[in-house]
Amino acid sequence: MKEIQQVISELKALPSKLHEKDFLLTWQQTPEELRRVLKTASAIRKMRAANIATNVFKNGLGVSVFRDNSTRTRFSFASAINMLGLAQQDLDEGKSQIAHGETVRETANMISFCADVIGIRDDMYLGAGNAYMREVGDALDDGFSQGVLPQRPAIINLQCDIDHPTQAMADLAWLQEHFGSLESLKGKKIAMTWAYSPSYGKPLSVPQAIIGLMTRFGMHVSLAHPEGYDLIPDVVETARKNATLSGGSFQHSHSMEEAFKGADIVYPKSWAPYHVMGKRTELLRANDHAGLKSLEQEALAQNAKHKDWHCTDAMMKLTKNAEALYMHCLPADITGVSCQEGEVADNVFEKYRIATYKEASWKPYIIAAMIMNRKFQNVGDVLEGLLQKANKRIV
Amino acid sequence: MKEIQQVISELKALPSKLHEKDFLLTWQQTPEELRRVLKTASAIRKMRAANIATNVFKNGLGVSVFRDNSTRTRFSFASAINMLGLAQQDLDEGKSQIAHGETVRETANMISFCADVIGIRDDMYLGAGNAYMREVGDALDDGFSQGVLPQRPAIINLQCDIDHPTQAMADLAWLQEHFGSLESLKGKKIAMTWAYSPSYGKPLSVPQAIIGLMTRFGMHVSLAHPEGYDLIPDVVETARKNATLSGGSFQHSHSMEEAFKGADIVYPKSWAPYHVMGKRTELLRANDHAGLKSLEQEALAQNAKHKDWHCTDAMMKLTKNAEALYMHCLPADITGVSCQEGEVADNVFEKYRIATYKEASWKPYIIAAMIMNRKFQNVGDVLEGLLQKANKRIV
Amino acid sequence: MKEIQQVISELKALPSKLHEKDFLLTWQQTPEELRRVLKTASAIRKMRAANIATNVFKNGLGVSVFRDNSTRTRFSFASAINMLGLAQQDLDEGKSQIAHGETVRETANMISFCADVIGIRDDMYLGAGNAYMREVGDALDDGFSQGVLPQRPAIINLQCDIDHPTQAMADLAWLQEHFGSLESLKGKKIAMTWAYSPSYGKPLSVPQAIIGLMTRFGMHVSLAHPEGYDLIPDVVETARKNATLSGGSFQHSHSMEEAFKGADIVYPKSWAPYHVMGKRTELLRANDHAGLKSLEQEALAQNAKHKDWHCTDAMMKLTKNAEALYMHCLPADITGVSCQEGEVADNVFEKYRIATYKEASWKPYIIAAMIMNRKFQNVGDVLEGLLQKANKRIV
Repeated sequence: MKEIQQVISELKALPSKLHEKDFLLTWQQTPEELRRVLKTASAIRKMRAANIATNVFKNGLGVSVFRDNSTRTRFSFASAINMLGLAQQDLDEGKSQIAHGETVRETANMISFCADVIGIRDDMYLGAGNAYMREVGDALDDGFSQGVLPQRPAIINLQCDIDHPTQAMADLAWLQEHFGSLESLKGKKIAMTWAYSPSYGKPLSVPQAIIGLMTRFGMHVSLAHPEGYDLIPDVVETARKNATLSGGSFQHSHSMEEAFKGADIVYPKSWAPYHVMGKRTELLRANDHAGLKSLEQEALAQNAKHKDWHCTDAMMKLTKNAEALYMHCLPADITGVSCQEGEVADNVFEKYRIATYKEASWKPYIIAAMIMNRKFQNVGDVLEGLLQKANKRIV
Repeated sequence: MKEIQQVISELKALPSKLHEKDFLLTWQQTPEELRRVLKTASAIRKMRAANIATNVFKNGLGVSVFRDNSTRTRFSFASAINMLGLAQQDLDEGKSQIAHGETVRETANMISFCADVIGIRDDMYLGAGNAYMREVGDALDDGFSQGVLPQRPAIINLQCDIDHPTQAMADLAWLQEHFGSLESLKGKKIAMTWAYSPSYGKPLSVPQAIIGLMTRFGMHVSLAHPEGYDLIPDVVETARKNATLSGGSFQHSHSMEEAFKGADIVYPKSWAPYHVMGKRTELLRANDHAGLKSLEQEALAQNAKHKDWHCTDAMMKLTKNAEALYMHCLPADITGVSCQEGEVADNVFEKYRIATYKEASWKPYIIAAMIMNRKFQNVGDVLEGLLQKANKRIV
Repeated sequence: MKEIQQVISELKALPSKLHEKDFLLTWQQTPEELRRVLKTASAIRKMRAANIATNVFKNGLGVSVFRDNSTRTRFSFASAINMLGLAQQDLDEGKSQIAHGETVRETANMISFCADVIGIRDDMYLGAGNAYMREVGDALDDGFSQGVLPQRPAIINLQCDIDHPTQAMADLAWLQEHFGSLESLKGKKIAMTWAYSPSYGKPLSVPQAIIGLMTRFGMHVSLAHPEGYDLIPDVVETARKNATLSGGSFQHSHSMEEAFKGADIVYPKSWAPYHVMGKRTELLRANDHAGLKSLEQEALAQNAKHKDWHCTDAMMKLTKNAEALYMHCLPADITGVSCQEGEVADNVFEKYRIATYKEASWKPYIIAAMIMNRKFQNVGDVLEGLLQKANKRIV
């Protein structure tokens, strides 16, 4: 209990304007705001472990909008709103349709009369996902200010075309747990690298999220991918600036070996090249199935030239003391297990399997923490209230 | 708080047998019962706005049965049961199938062991939707009296072939809010008119619900549609009788202009002609796809002759001081926005957009009020209990 | 209240290790453990009837995994977790896919960070359903012991290829209610017989569950089916041993008449022969649609030779005083109602219709009782706590 009180006291000291804005991109938040979310997640997690109920709502809806298939994000979101006392309701718009204008404005209001949270995953269309979330946010602001909505639901970015803030923040929480503190990450090297996968069209949001966030805390971030597999240039530029400001560094190369060399942490993961994602978005909008098919063929053939981007024992030997922490957002393409040739060798993955599960386990708490910081200015007081009451989660 | 207590005191004075019967058609309820539902909705809404939790169930299910696609009704129902403390569970029977007899009787019982509410939307088949709800109700009565069910779930009509009571009651609550009181509606003119839409087969239940309910409160109700676009004759007859009894009037014409002239409120909305809906029901039952296709063609061609049934500025100029309140159950077919030519001009809609959102915002509270009045004879006492406890909805 | 206290006191006297193991097969539980589940179900049911809330969780998820269509099991599970305070979340894996190895291990953990219960129905594949549940259980044990999961979710077997423990236990609870006590079942004859149905491929789990459980309490269990319609031999052997141990008997014949003769209870129900289910599993795995189609033809033709396995008045006349209790897990194939020729004559079914509904009504309570016994060693104390607090379910 003292430990929980300690975390709450620390977060109360961190200034935050998160209650005034949706948390859509990590680089729009101050370092204090990011730390606050981490500490909130930590406090909620510790309370749950101590069998203290964290319900802050007696009723209310948490709406999920998934424009792509999802199991783990769906469960993380459902878990997060459930531990706060909200009930889940899914908005099923049909996956392939991009709604605009009046439809977005109207739907956003129609689902929100009793909603406290709206979680959105929209990562299919480059240039559209984050824009959609902001459009929904504007509609909610309008509805709230005009008296249509009795409350302004928090929007949670469950993955967009630009960032994947709940993933990256969960990853950061895991690194903090693994290495003991946020401060101990200073000076550590993390390799965010492309890796071969037999599928194509994986979003850019994970690598972008990682380089955009890990550069905030004085880490040495090394991004590596084959030529042509670029990320959104603006995000790379943001990462570079972040590194300078935080006293870390940012390297960008086309060599997996170089990135792995001496790394404390490695994050090998496949993604589609920026220009392929752009082309794909055009074709999806045009409903050009033949075009999509031929783009897929091309992209897969291109990928196949880079099967050597494979996280093997030999690669791991290059890392610090040959025992860097392996990370993945899951599911990984594991060679010989989930595919013939993939991102990671089965023995490497097996060694870190439980570590990746623990990495994932932070997501529900991060989402809950984001919601609490959006809904309550005085999160510390709210958490203290829960701690003092100490209602049991399980009788 | 005093304001809420006032509303509760008023509703306690209104005699009601709503706890003994399902609220399936507004014209089967007394004026006092209708007022009681409105006041209950108002009290719940005010409590929520004052951050007072309205949970009256610690657990229990609210089952939804949607035999047609639905987003806003689904969310309204989910919101209503959530604010009362129930969890939503959807019964997915397959959309096209009409269940009968043993299946209905058995299923009604099987889903109700722990259900306190069943919300049903069944508006596809003329002559079948309301009948289905009554069949479910009979099965529940039987199950309850035989000791199969420990409680009799409330049935909520979320739209049938005859009436759409949650919509019309929400509309009435909005009119009450907009004009200040139910009494102030006396003598006001409301135009319920057909309007052109590029789709066909829209149910009759909204216009029928409006003329069936608004004639209860001394309003002058003017129904207008092109020749051949009749509603169910019995419902029109009911509206006529209602008007006489309430001291209002009921006019029926084939001129949108005549209906709009001097109107305080206009409700222009497309629907399919009665005989088309009858024919469509036959074809649906017979699974005659070719027949349905050709009926659609015919009906659309017929509709296209009436594109002048369009709610434009010029039409609005005919209304009282050129500023009647525009209403719609949403989504509207907005010319140049959601379709090329539709029910309403975009500038007219935009002027009243927020008003239509506020109109819609009443639905969750109306549904919750219907549930409470079905489950509790002493709704006033229950609401007073909530008010006195004043548990916070959000900590 | 005294009656409830009495049941709780009785269950406290029954030794149980159910909190250490998942309840996957009834024959793996001791008689005391089975009685404990029955008494827990009875206590929960009585509390609900007395309007006492049975919420033991303030938050948490109950995950359902249905690998086959289901309405009543879905609602029973949803009801059970709801009455304990958990929220339902469905894992939709796609029906036809059999997940293995890494996928099962990973998914089991990913959905369980905040899950207290996982209910699984997997009855399509002979040799796979129960194995899958054990595989999930192993993954959960591992995740919990490694610190990935803060709690070990209970696995509830909602029907597998071998047993259907929630059905059989609900059936037993109903027999206990109907005949007054578990003790009064001693010496009663129950006929578990095959019956004709115009469909094929019905799982073996219900008849196996019945012979595996009812032989535990000194009943005379008579299994009858046409030649070739065998059940899994191991389960039949288990039933035979059970009967010996409990002081009852087990008969196995190919005559419906013989089984019905003098029976106190009859349970006529269709199932597919063991070897057909085995063949079907192979074909499903091989995705051999043509093979499946031809197997179905063969099996239906084979079934059609046994239309005389029909529960008619004449058959019922053979039973004890011509008034044995008819049981069915529902839905039954009722001749002239749900099919032309089926398992049971319509007048026989109608006579026992309400009885079968009451039989089904026990399932939510049995599931809730299984969950409680898995999650709490001291179920009696937990129930007493609820009884003493006596929070109202409905205000």
